[in-house]
Amino acid sequence: MAPTFADIEAARGRIDGIARVTPVYSSETFSRLTGRPVWLKAENLQRTGAFKIRGAVNRLSLLGERERAAGVVAASAGNHGQAVAWAARELGIDAKIFMPEDAPMAKVEATRNYGAEAVLAGTDFDDAVRRAKAYVAECGATFVHAFEDEQVIAGQGTIGLELADQLPDVETFVLPIGGGGLAAGIALGLRELRPRSRIVGVQASDVANTIADGIAVKHPGELTMSMLDDLLDDIVHVDDHETSEATVLLLERAKLVVEGAGAVSVAALLKGKAGGSGAACCLLSGGNIDATLLISVMRHGLTRSGRYLVVRSKVADRPGELIKLLELVARERGNLVSVEHHREGMAIDVAETEVELTVITRDAEHCTDLCAAMEAEGFPVEQIE
Amino acid sequence: MAPTFADIEAARGRIDGIARVTPVYSSETFSRLTGRPVWLKAENLQRTGAFKIRGAVNRLSLLGERERAAGVVAASAGNHGQAVAWAARELGIDAKIFMPEDAPMAKVEATRNYGAEAVLAGTDFDDAVRRAKAYVAECGATFVHAFEDEQVIAGQGTIGLELADQLPDVETFVLPIGGGGLAAGIALGLRELRPRSRIVGVQASDVANTIADGIAVKHPGELTMSMLDDLLDDIVHVDDHETSEATVLLLERAKLVVEGAGAVSVAALLKGKAGGSGAACCLLSGGNIDATLLISVMRHGLTRSGRYLVVRSKVADRPGELIKLLELVARERGNLVSVEHHREGMAIDVAETEVELTVITRDAEHCTDLCAAMEAEGFPVEQIE
Repeated sequence: MAPTFADIEAARGRIDGIARVTPVYSSETFSRLTGRPVWLKAENLQRTGAFKIRGAVNRLSLLGERERAAGVVAASAGNHGQAVAWAARELGIDAKIFMPEDAPMAKVEATRNYGAEAVLAGTDFDDAVRRAKAYVAECGATFVHAFEDEQVIAGQGTIGLELADQLPDVETFVLPIGGGGLAAGIALGLRELRPRSRIVGVQASDVANTIADGIAVKHPGELTMSMLDDLLDDIVHVDDHETSEATVLLLERAKLVVEGAGAVSVAALLKGKAGGSGAACCLLSGGNIDATLLISVMRHGLTRSGRYLVVRSKVADRPGELIKLLELVARERGNLVSVEHHREGMAIDVAETEVELTVITRDAEHCTDLCAAMEAEGFPVEQIE
Repeated sequence: MAPTFADIEAARGRIDGIARVTPVYSSETFSRLTGRPVWLKAENLQRTGAFKIRGAVNRLSLLGERERAAGVVAASAGNHGQAVAWAARELGIDAKIFMPEDAPMAKVEATRNYGAEAVLAGTDFDDAVRRAKAYVAECGATFVHAFEDEQVIAGQGTIGLELADQLPDVETFVLPIGGGGLAAGIALGLRELRPRSRIVGVQASDVANTIADGIAVKHPGELTMSMLDDLLDDIVHVDDHETSEATVLLLERAKLVVEGAGAVSVAALLKGKAGGSGAACCLLSGGNIDATLLISVMRHGLTRSGRYLVVRSKVADRPGELIKLLELVARERGNLVSVEHHREGMAIDVAETEVELTVITRDAEHCTDLCAAMEAEGFPVEQIE
């Protein structure tokens, strides 16, 4: 059954003093880029690095004494699992979090650090869910679903109450959609308090394979989807290129680390997909991204926006030819990161050498100019990445 | 002349509603790593991405009408220049920011975006300062020094007032030192309000060549240094390895982008250099770091903490040998990022091929195990980066 506005208000009382009221920041850069005032709701600065603890704390607070004693169970190697582990510890409840056997060690350790038992079981996520439910059926613990649960949705909805307080003048709210619990809860709250606002949901365009893994939900909820049908003005899609560019801008301009799933709202706004005309607020839903993955995302985002150029060329196999190419790069004010030099390979003539350059460039125009200068001096250009 | 506590209180009134009161965050990870409660003061979330606007707004607010009309001048390609540009715009004053001719385009553009005139003059920073002062002497504008100025110091000191309000129970405060204006101002405020607290300053150990370029000040101030002599309990040093590890932890755990100069406080605390015993607060002074530099810092930090392994080895030049090595890496659960394969080179026998592997590893122990497994199977190991 769908939660009511009163459920969200009650949830706010339950999470008070446990979850953070996260700050909102105005962004001069994003405002300039979009031509409208832009605010960011920094839920990546929430405890555990994501909004999920709001729903988990609300759900667990409502358990009776006998249910608390029997413990709680979740199936997730991501933010939801960590949120249930954290909320259970705060409320003094035992938690078991089921994850597939090949879950990354970092996620397993994070869950354990929050005091939960991490149960590695099953070959994939669906299998882990089956085992979690079998365990629950057997021992009477409570299974906490990540989104298909009215009290979880009500907990996420507390963000809507905060937004209405913090940003009375915002016209458009842009929210990530994964399972849909976050967007459904927030939209329910905002429809009550700001009935005339525009509310837009954002999904990853390729759910099967996206850097926005936090919203890569294969089976969206029936409950959440029926709520979103009623509550949202629009649902739009962004691809990983757009998300990675947004991630870089959030890092450089807002100084915030935002995971892919959390950056889709900004990507949609920057690409003009959110619609509306007044002040906009993008929800940054979380910041849990591994540093090694973040490096890949940053490289990709920089390449897409013309600030990182990886280019393959060929130079004649004579002394001084490579130097000539490097001088050209320096003259065009490219900042060389690396040079690779391959003498052998199928596509290379005996008299020439393949060279791969990685160069820091200023913007897309600088990239184009640099490639044109190379071609003008007889160096072929094959842009990669 | 040194500012007084009353100057800081007056500064607080002047910056009110212009600069942000930045949030403080408790960090569970840093608390666990250091065995004491740890708080972060997120001045990287200040407008323009650094604390410097506090001093600039305070200084510029005190100009008389004739001085305002004549405009202000600063020499800086960094946070101070952007802060003076931003503060001048907020107060409706013309600003000229002098930078060396080879200043990065991104810095020039950031300054222009804040509405100031960027004057590219001089071959290096000292030369730009000379030209800025010559201009001031000629036309009567006001030169705003980055730290050797009592009203700039008083402005930075407003952070001390906020800390005293926000963190009544903190025992040790850890502050970056560059020119010293930030640490001097904060320490002056804290000595009045929290006279028994421990206050520690942190400098980069190699000022000539550091990723903490925001505190790479060749000539620290006479005024600030005499204040710091009186006010600080200790000054300690961290190197770039320590700073880059702290930067990665701040990104992954606190979800905050912090420039090198801003991360030295966390580096000092994590390495046990800050002393004291109670709750500690690290000041994150700014977040202005270019994404391309941030990638280098992250790679270095991950390598230092054993989560990124770059290793050179040799394999016999027979079919299947490279596959044998890659299978070993997979078996040891290393996550392969790239393989480079060199057939030619001075140090390589005719019958062998040099291979460079980049592998994502779990931690230092995993790294050691992987290298040991390679050596056990006859693959030599040379760890690089």
